[in-house]
Amino acid sequence: MKTEVFTLPNGSDITLTTYILDTSEEMPNMKIRPAVLVCPGGGYSACSDREAEPVAMAFLAQGYNAFVLRYSVGKGKAAFPRPLEDAEAALELIRMNAGKWSVDKNKIAVIGFSAGGHLAAALAAMGRVRPNAVILGYPCILSSIGDVLVEPVPSITDYVDAKTPPAFIFASSEDTCVPIENSLAFATALDKAKVPFEMHIFEKGNHGFSLATPVVCSNRTALEANRFAKQWFSMCMDWLNNLFAIG
Amino acid sequence: MKTEVFTLPNGSDITLTTYILDTSEEMPNMKIRPAVLVCPGGGYSACSDREAEPVAMAFLAQGYNAFVLRYSVGKGKAAFPRPLEDAEAALELIRMNAGKWSVDKNKIAVIGFSAGGHLAAALAAMGRVRPNAVILGYPCILSSIGDVLVEPVPSITDYVDAKTPPAFIFASSEDTCVPIENSLAFATALDKAKVPFEMHIFEKGNHGFSLATPVVCSNRTALEANRFAKQWFSMCMDWLNNLFAIG
Amino acid sequence: MKTEVFTLPNGSDITLTTYILDTSEEMPNMKIRPAVLVCPGGGYSACSDREAEPVAMAFLAQGYNAFVLRYSVGKGKAAFPRPLEDAEAALELIRMNAGKWSVDKNKIAVIGFSAGGHLAAALAAMGRVRPNAVILGYPCILSSIGDVLVEPVPSITDYVDAKTPPAFIFASSEDTCVPIENSLAFATALDKAKVPFEMHIFEKGNHGFSLATPVVCSNRTALEANRFAKQWFSMCMDWLNNLFAIG
Amino acid sequence: MKTEVFTLPNGSDITLTTYILDTSEEMPNMKIRPAVLVCPGGGYSACSDREAEPVAMAFLAQGYNAFVLRYSVGKGKAAFPRPLEDAEAALELIRMNAGKWSVDKNKIAVIGFSAGGHLAAALAAMGRVRPNAVILGYPCILSSIGDVLVEPVPSITDYVDAKTPPAFIFASSEDTCVPIENSLAFATALDKAKVPFEMHIFEKGNHGFSLATPVVCSNRTALEANRFAKQWFSMCMDWLNNLFAIG
Repeated sequence: MKTEVFTLPNGSDITLTTYILDTSEEMPNMKIRPAVLVCPGGGYSACSDREAEPVAMAFLAQGYNAFVLRYSVGKGKAAFPRPLEDAEAALELIRMNAGKWSVDKNKIAVIGFSAGGHLAAALAAMGRVRPNAVILGYPCILSSIGDVLVEPVPSITDYVDAKTPPAFIFASSEDTCVPIENSLAFATALDKAKVPFEMHIFEKGNHGFSLATPVVCSNRTALEANRFAKQWFSMCMDWLNNLFAIG
Repeated sequence: MKTEVFTLPNGSDITLTTYILDTSEEMPNMKIRPAVLVCPGGGYSACSDREAEPVAMAFLAQGYNAFVLRYSVGKGKAAFPRPLEDAEAALELIRMNAGKWSVDKNKIAVIGFSAGGHLAAALAAMGRVRPNAVILGYPCILSSIGDVLVEPVPSITDYVDAKTPPAFIFASSEDTCVPIENSLAFATALDKAKVPFEMHIFEKGNHGFSLATPVVCSNRTALEANRFAKQWFSMCMDWLNNLFAIG
Repeated sequence: MKTEVFTLPNGSDITLTTYILDTSEEMPNMKIRPAVLVCPGGGYSACSDREAEPVAMAFLAQGYNAFVLRYSVGKGKAAFPRPLEDAEAALELIRMNAGKWSVDKNKIAVIGFSAGGHLAAALAAMGRVRPNAVILGYPCILSSIGDVLVEPVPSITDYVDAKTPPAFIFASSEDTCVPIENSLAFATALDKAKVPFEMHIFEKGNHGFSLATPVVCSNRTALEANRFAKQWFSMCMDWLNNLFAIG
Repeated sequence: MKTEVFTLPNGSDITLTTYILDTSEEMPNMKIRPAVLVCPGGGYSACSDREAEPVAMAFLAQGYNAFVLRYSVGKGKAAFPRPLEDAEAALELIRMNAGKWSVDKNKIAVIGFSAGGHLAAALAAMGRVRPNAVILGYPCILSSIGDVLVEPVPSITDYVDAKTPPAFIFASSEDTCVPIENSLAFATALDKAKVPFEMHIFEKGNHGFSLATPVVCSNRTALEANRFAKQWFSMCMDWLNNLFAIG
């Protein structure tokens, strides 16, 4: 396994952390691996550690190579479309290095949480380059969510098109930070554009539950509140492995 | 365990089949039980056995008493609101016999599939009497679905109100019989009315997957196609037991 | 679904309660069903309700027909081999009525808990007639367990033979009532006789956890103590359905 | 995340690969982490990649830091107790660097597979230093297994004592390479020494199934054969997290 941090040309603080698993003659069907690009949340004012390395680890354990993007954040810097340009650059870098990094360039998913979900959705629906699957955790989608972000954002629903890849959405309907109408609106847009999708809206779950594991939940109360929502990950892997014909 | 078939005054072919579990001093917390009223699907032209007794059994195994309603179906007979009147009568009968049938009258869920989902949603949103929770499997919701039903139906979304109980919805987005917009529209209406809800939309799954078990799937192909969607039941029990404070 | 109570010729208080699911043209692969014979525990001094109907329900929900045996119990009456004769009579009655009860006579499992596990193991290893699979929950196996039973019992390990059907065993190693050496000894005997088996020994779990569901656990403490052990049932169904080629 | 390879003083080809997760102020309960020492199998003639990095990844995803030991293997070099000395040195190195590597020195489990299971069991029962938990996958335990190993080995059952840490064992009873009597004998020895243990013996499963994921299974046939046995990992984490009071 090899981990490196690359600085993207987009800015001195825009980094892509790569997690590349070893290959082995003993594991012939994983010489070329599917991959995931992770966009942590943080209201476009930061990139949360809770939705960065732990998420990469969850996918690495499933045999995926993983990449964590720390994109443009903060007042001014996060002005759209700068974060989208960062994500496009990251995806291009991964595809360019697919051979070196043992990545199947046609099996790259992007996953984003909250504001990072807005970014992942933007890459999927508006990107100059597109991922092969998109996974959204309690995503910001609509411009109306701008109030909780540092900069205004476009409604991604306006851009969903036939080139948008299959999508997996998860969230909780009691989320008081990002209203569930964001996920519902995105699913409705996908349905209209005939893009295949799966969506799991749990009733219970705090905003930002990430993987809902002991790693990312700092106490029993949080683990308890998110104990049902935690199931998103195994369902996501069922869905993604089926899409990518893994296993 | 005691099973009986009651004919409702609504019509000679309108029946309620009751499944009442034995009580025991050894199981003190299940002397009064939660209950479920099952509305099978069948396009308002029949009541499918695949969504009747097997569904009752799944809930009985969780300690719920169960009731299967065979409501008004067929051209003419199924004209709205006749099926709704049947469901109201069934719910009233259960509440009236709550003592005799060891049912907690404040813990009665209704579950409906497809056209039976339309009926269950109608009972939840329009009923003269209401259940305490509603569970909808790949439900018909919108009047636009009328084409596949024997009689026109109202859009239940027009009636969702503050008295509508918490809802659990499951479906598959690739369903070619009942478009997924039905579930999406109902969830959107619940969200607007501030009714708590949970919704699981799998990408894969044939219309009418019911419990997706060997009992209701007649071959390997069907089991395989519905293997992910099958998870709805355990998530439904998590949700319902949490709502009803069971366990 | 039809439930009846039959008194066996073995004694006026020896009963077999039958739970026969309805058949339907819509469920063609479940016209002839696999079945389970349930032997509740109770130290050969009683038959516990907690390991009777709730267990039948769990199997009914999987499409099995179910039969609960209330066998000879109490000082004197439970003297071996009287309970075994009851179980043999019950199994013969089921096979004799296989056609009427829609049972596949070659797909009949027996399940027993604690002292009922001793009985189920006896039927499997010593019976004049044998079931097609045996499932043992925290079973009494060795004569050394006689102290906690009302009558002495033989060690079933002495009788395991090539005709003993495949076995599934579950228990907890912290059980202070029936020592885990009982399960270990039985598995060792099966291994020596080359009988296929599966065994799940959880560390945590109170004696008599049954299904470890809210139905049979009377409080949160019990549910919490048995939350891991609860997984035996789904693994048991994986194993049994695979053995019986169901699904 | 930081990965390094350390050569142990025991020999130029004895290495410890370290996987140390990043810490973060946002994840306060994972600043000091539990850890796992992984001993791959390979008949004491090699260390299998299939039971090395993929296993480390599975634990990293649960918030554990991980260490893979490549111990003395091959005719002559693997002569007991050389591999045990390697494992002792590895465990000492981890405890010595606990501060630097953010490891809780009282929450270190060792996991071993097949011959690596023999080594892990030896460390747990005979080690000069001992781990805090031991996890054994289809382990070699008895000297009778020597035929399939490059060097004779002692029966670990002879050494189980009160200092042996709690154990988790998993295997399949149809394993034709390492007879299941090895696991049964070890559990029996643990029981006699009153060491807490959990053991899951699946009927189905090929020898060397590792995590039974698409990463380590090279085709559908292998995935299918091991689909039940695959459940060991989540039960192992339930058990280990409970033991280590994680979550």
